[in-house]
Amino acid sequence: MKAKVTISFKPGVLDPQGRAISHALAGLGFEGVGDVRQGKVIELDLAETDAAKAREQVEAMCQALLANPVIETYAIELAK
Amino acid sequence: MKAKVTISFKPGVLDPQGRAISHALAGLGFEGVGDVRQGKVIELDLAETDAAKAREQVEAMCQALLANPVIETYAIELAK
Repeated sequence: MKAKVTISFKPGVLDPQGRAISHALAGLGFEGVGDVRQGKVIELDLAETDAAKAREQVEAMCQALLANPVIETYAIELAK
Repeated sequence: MKAKVTISFKPGVLDPQGRAISHALAGLGFEGVGDVRQGKVIELDLAETDAAKAREQVEAMCQALLANPVIETYAIELAK
């Protein structure tokens, strides 16, 4: 089973990477660009074939390592 | 208009971050984890309201700054 975890900053958390991208785009002449936010996407190949167990496993991975629950939120997508 | 750009390494490109995550998960006792790959998600608020123009603009941003076409691929999603 494949799992895709999208991790992004919680609203209100300063996103220096997003700020840097926004400034760089303006410097390159791109206009009309408002807020820019950068997050992570982690794709995992899992041996687990049961969707519920796989989700539970990935949830535990997010809590233990992949995401910082203080400043980040995460969304889990599973695919066969 | 909101744009979401998902950037990931091309197949075959070494992903040290993914490797590090994979080893860390194994060290934490997670079993059955195969390949792990990490990419970026960049969310942009655009003043542009026309979808075709917005896609063209984001395409140009990807080529100019957001993605490294030598080792990365990108996918653009637009939302009102």
